[in-house]
Amino acid sequence: MKLRNIILSADDIPRQWYNILADIKMNPPLGPDGNPISPDALAPVFPMNLIEQEVSDKRWIDIPEPVLDVLQIWRPAPLVRAYSFEKALDTPAKIYVKNEGVSPPGSHKPNTAVPQAYYNKEFGIQNISTETGAGQWGSALSFACSQFGLNCKVFMVRVSFDQKPYRKAMMQAWGGECVASPSMETKAGRDILEKMPDTPGSLGIAISEAIEAAVSDTSGKTRYSLGSVLNHVMLHQTIIGLEAKKQFNMINEYPDVIIGCAGGGSNFAGLAFPFVLDKMNGKDIAIYPVEPKACPTMTRAPFVYDHGDTARYTPLLPMHSLGHNFIPPPIHAGGLRYHGMAPTVSQLIVEGLITPRSVSQLDSYRAGVLWARTEGVIPAPETTNALACVVEEALKAKEEGKEKVIVATFSGHGLLDLAAYDKFFSGELTDVSLPDETIEEGKNIFKDYPKPQRLQSR
Amino acid sequence: MKLRNIILSADDIPRQWYNILADIKMNPPLGPDGNPISPDALAPVFPMNLIEQEVSDKRWIDIPEPVLDVLQIWRPAPLVRAYSFEKALDTPAKIYVKNEGVSPPGSHKPNTAVPQAYYNKEFGIQNISTETGAGQWGSALSFACSQFGLNCKVFMVRVSFDQKPYRKAMMQAWGGECVASPSMETKAGRDILEKMPDTPGSLGIAISEAIEAAVSDTSGKTRYSLGSVLNHVMLHQTIIGLEAKKQFNMINEYPDVIIGCAGGGSNFAGLAFPFVLDKMNGKDIAIYPVEPKACPTMTRAPFVYDHGDTARYTPLLPMHSLGHNFIPPPIHAGGLRYHGMAPTVSQLIVEGLITPRSVSQLDSYRAGVLWARTEGVIPAPETTNALACVVEEALKAKEEGKEKVIVATFSGHGLLDLAAYDKFFSGELTDVSLPDETIEEGKNIFKDYPKPQRLQSR
Repeated sequence: MKLRNIILSADDIPRQWYNILADIKMNPPLGPDGNPISPDALAPVFPMNLIEQEVSDKRWIDIPEPVLDVLQIWRPAPLVRAYSFEKALDTPAKIYVKNEGVSPPGSHKPNTAVPQAYYNKEFGIQNISTETGAGQWGSALSFACSQFGLNCKVFMVRVSFDQKPYRKAMMQAWGGECVASPSMETKAGRDILEKMPDTPGSLGIAISEAIEAAVSDTSGKTRYSLGSVLNHVMLHQTIIGLEAKKQFNMINEYPDVIIGCAGGGSNFAGLAFPFVLDKMNGKDIAIYPVEPKACPTMTRAPFVYDHGDTARYTPLLPMHSLGHNFIPPPIHAGGLRYHGMAPTVSQLIVEGLITPRSVSQLDSYRAGVLWARTEGVIPAPETTNALACVVEEALKAKEEGKEKVIVATFSGHGLLDLAAYDKFFSGELTDVSLPDETIEEGKNIFKDYPKPQRLQSR
Repeated sequence: MKLRNIILSADDIPRQWYNILADIKMNPPLGPDGNPISPDALAPVFPMNLIEQEVSDKRWIDIPEPVLDVLQIWRPAPLVRAYSFEKALDTPAKIYVKNEGVSPPGSHKPNTAVPQAYYNKEFGIQNISTETGAGQWGSALSFACSQFGLNCKVFMVRVSFDQKPYRKAMMQAWGGECVASPSMETKAGRDILEKMPDTPGSLGIAISEAIEAAVSDTSGKTRYSLGSVLNHVMLHQTIIGLEAKKQFNMINEYPDVIIGCAGGGSNFAGLAFPFVLDKMNGKDIAIYPVEPKACPTMTRAPFVYDHGDTARYTPLLPMHSLGHNFIPPPIHAGGLRYHGMAPTVSQLIVEGLITPRSVSQLDSYRAGVLWARTEGVIPAPETTNALACVVEEALKAKEEGKEKVIVATFSGHGLLDLAAYDKFFSGELTDVSLPDETIEEGKNIFKDYPKPQRLQSR
């Protein structure tokens, strides 16, 4: 019997997260005046214990016991050897995925939702507001809040809210409240609805609403939570890669190629960062964050200072960005439609430690269906982007006749995205190409902001 | 850190199934003439290797290597200690569930779909036809067929087909074909549509269509597959209980109470039968199959000979039955709406080895929501029936001040049943009570058939 799942015991769950800020120099976030902001400026938005984590440069940070206790519901997550997928591709490559679809909401998102809920609770917060695109993050945070007895309010991008009514029921099952964004509940929402009453919404808009909902609660008992992009989110996700390393150790294997889909960057970072550390220490690894061609933040947009949200409530972050006003084409990988990219991931691109790739929507679904029919689990649309890149690398390995070890993050299952598969099967999905003008226009947005100095590559 | 998941290694997957036919005497299936049928009579419907398994009285049957290889995609399945659920119920009971929701389609069904596809393939079959109610079985068989390169055709009860369009896409993702039943593709379907053009359909009707589709293929390359009720299905599901026993061994614990929801009986049987063996050997265990009050096959219907399908294509099986014409109220636990009950499960009821229970729809959803908010995973509607019984037993343990060990099968997750949760939250679900006349009428159906002799209890 071939060993398909490399399974760790409960004792093997990592006890510390890896903080990449210990190993790279970052450009600081800037305030509206163009000057670096102090951590205190974020206090109305996030609890101070998370802000401290956001700016910490300690390399290893302990995972609190109550967080481990909840993570244990689905962790350690399996590392899967994809024998049947390899066979279908007729490749000499050994393909592994780290399956993050085993969590209760079905994605990697709870890896950070749980610690974020915990730290908010510890700080005395009672209510958390957030945004969600396809619904994965809102579901994950609702789940996490239910574990720590917090109230959760989710602003969900309208187009997804309408397309996926079941996501709302899912959040409700965990006690969360979900409203379509833009909504009439915030000034940011009302302003946008006045200008564009029929807008499908965007993550940028929903973030604005969620931040406003948090900072405008004068009781001080509400904070905002973000499911990607920020340093502490990347930190929490490193449990993926740290577990994967233990699993590769178990089978005496080490990856040559690391792949993850990247919307805000957290799923990719979760797997990749612990391996980036090895690369900085001399290991020869190719590391690929993958994005859809329809939202080419890393592969076509510039590295600049930009806001994380449309209403410009967030500080200016140093990142690859299509512009905070960017509204992406309606591709069916909601989690990969964000205009920006985590500053840490962006920084690693600048330093040449990782190399972004882009894939088409149809290639992604084809890879996803091949995965379902060989390995069984139906992948989330976001995950199919990573799988499309795995296919490319596996075929390249075949061409080169090399027995490479490829590992990808399997960010989630697609059981809540079957409508998109339905469209794919009925031929309604197309490859969305983004005209150059869109990105040029994006560039213009940044002209008012200071461009960061490009750091020396290491 | 409390140990929430009792995890086995891949090596611990059981290598044999437990066959309860070695330990109980059964009434034989009868042909239309009222005489016992020979195994050969089933040859047009099932492949001979599965028929041999259906009538085997060997106690332990080897699981073929290629079957183990596929089962390993999600097995061994976790045994979960429900600390948070216990705490919410303030009970001294220790509550465990065997989580079968971790399979690719999200339920226990692939435990038998995979070996059935394997044996069909071995026998030279190319196409399998089947029926599905809520969609779990059709999805599971589509998945299994994709693993062995077989074509799969699924007749789905119309009301579910209309309510759950995504189930069709799910089957399609695995290459399966799904049509609404009754359909115009079979005589059984056409006859019923002529009489009742607006019928919501039923499992009984869909079974008739699927059998007809198999036996009417004159090439001999098509067979029918049933997801519950039959002996070989129960056999394949015993991997659940056999694994659970290993897990209880690991933690030096043994259950006092065993609970499983029962539609056709296979999920219940899967967990319970290996423990029934212990009970026959003197262990003191309470074993409860649980059904909805709206479809009270075990708790209110008689033990008789009846057909497994509406068009009476199947042999007469000795079982608890509400009558093969029974169309159950539209409760939202599609897998528990079958008119009959596995002959083996029925026999154990007659012998007093297990004790059926029934629960209401609203109590079930309440238990399900409590589970989601404490243990994280959103349970399938069917699973909530088992959880409602767990709640009753946990509260009884509290009343009695006893530290009982309760274990239940968690037949599946509810991520494909969120519409039902949505209705529950919006107050649209009610408790469906079945009038006595319905069951009386049911009784009359059997008057033409020989009643089985009641066996002596052991």
